[in-house]
Amino acid sequence: MPKQVDHEARRQVIAEAVCTLADEKGLEGVTLRDVAARAQVSMGAVQRCFRTKEEMLVFALGYVGERVADRVRARRLRSPAQSAGTVLGHAAGEVSLLRAEHRAEARVWLAFLAQAAVSEPLAAILRANYAALEDMFTTLVAEAAALVDEPAARRAARTLLALADGLTSHVLIGHLTPQVAHDVLDAHLAALH
Amino acid sequence: MPKQVDHEARRQVIAEAVCTLADEKGLEGVTLRDVAARAQVSMGAVQRCFRTKEEMLVFALGYVGERVADRVRARRLRSPAQSAGTVLGHAAGEVSLLRAEHRAEARVWLAFLAQAAVSEPLAAILRANYAALEDMFTTLVAEAAALVDEPAARRAARTLLALADGLTSHVLIGHLTPQVAHDVLDAHLAALH
Repeated sequence: MPKQVDHEARRQVIAEAVCTLADEKGLEGVTLRDVAARAQVSMGAVQRCFRTKEEMLVFALGYVGERVADRVRARRLRSPAQSAGTVLGHAAGEVSLLRAEHRAEARVWLAFLAQAAVSEPLAAILRANYAALEDMFTTLVAEAAALVDEPAARRAARTLLALADGLTSHVLIGHLTPQVAHDVLDAHLAALH
Repeated sequence: MPKQVDHEARRQVIAEAVCTLADEKGLEGVTLRDVAARAQVSMGAVQRCFRTKEEMLVFALGYVGERVADRVRARRLRSPAQSAGTVLGHAAGEVSLLRAEHRAEARVWLAFLAQAAVSEPLAAILRANYAALEDMFTTLVAEAAALVDEPAARRAARTLLALADGLTSHVLIGHLTPQVAHDVLDAHLAALH
């Protein structure tokens, strides 16, 4: 079924174009015309892939979420013999998008987060992402801090996720440098175990 | 100078209209036409107050920031005999905008935060806000936790501000209930002192 493969590949190319534009100008800058131009496809082709702008944004958000989740998994698989504390530190580092090469991804994520506050379909995708992350971090925190109390581990996971998101946005607006944000995150993690 | 007073009052009415629209549809929904209609003034009147949309957003953001800062100050003045821990808890509660009556303000703040990641004038306003909040929380944390080490108090203040912002956005997208977010914040504050 080469046609379906092409369709999926094209959707991904369009999702990449959405992210590039969102990074440059925010989601307001994501217009059908500009997305088509950036993806080097016709406006008709974009419309055949996505019926509405919201459908396109929902797909692009899922695409970014998958990429971050893949990195967290890949990092765990690369060095399976790490201590639980190290695994937790790496996972927290990946989701907080503080590294320079993830700055664009962070800006796109923040744009989606803000739009999700007024768009239920986007909020539903984010909720699924955060629920999965919260479960993963609950397990990681329980291992790293030797916490047998599930509610306490879940609360620590919620704290960590919210802290990571807050730090990311404070770096994006230039309130904190990436180094300071890293120090804050590391100090928080160190106090956990 | 009744004319100048009118001008400032009109700017505030327009800022209110910007916030109402941003709450409903995000900053994308903030158009000159809709702002004028919502503020019940002519489009020309809006343009006489603000030369560009960005100038209007910068003013509205400053207006929201002032309102939050005023609430924090008012709460301190209302009960001057509180313990340092209570003052810190109240201040953290105010900036995290978790109360139902501040949900609209939280949505507007998140929309501005995302836009600030791609707009330097908005980022500059937010940086000034966060710098002032960080100084205030550094003092409050130092008092509440009896921390004489300024760098440690500042790091705790940065952690608290980032955590409060992350929790707010997680409530806005429905990942956490306001009650759960409050519990996370309270547990974090309790561990400080």
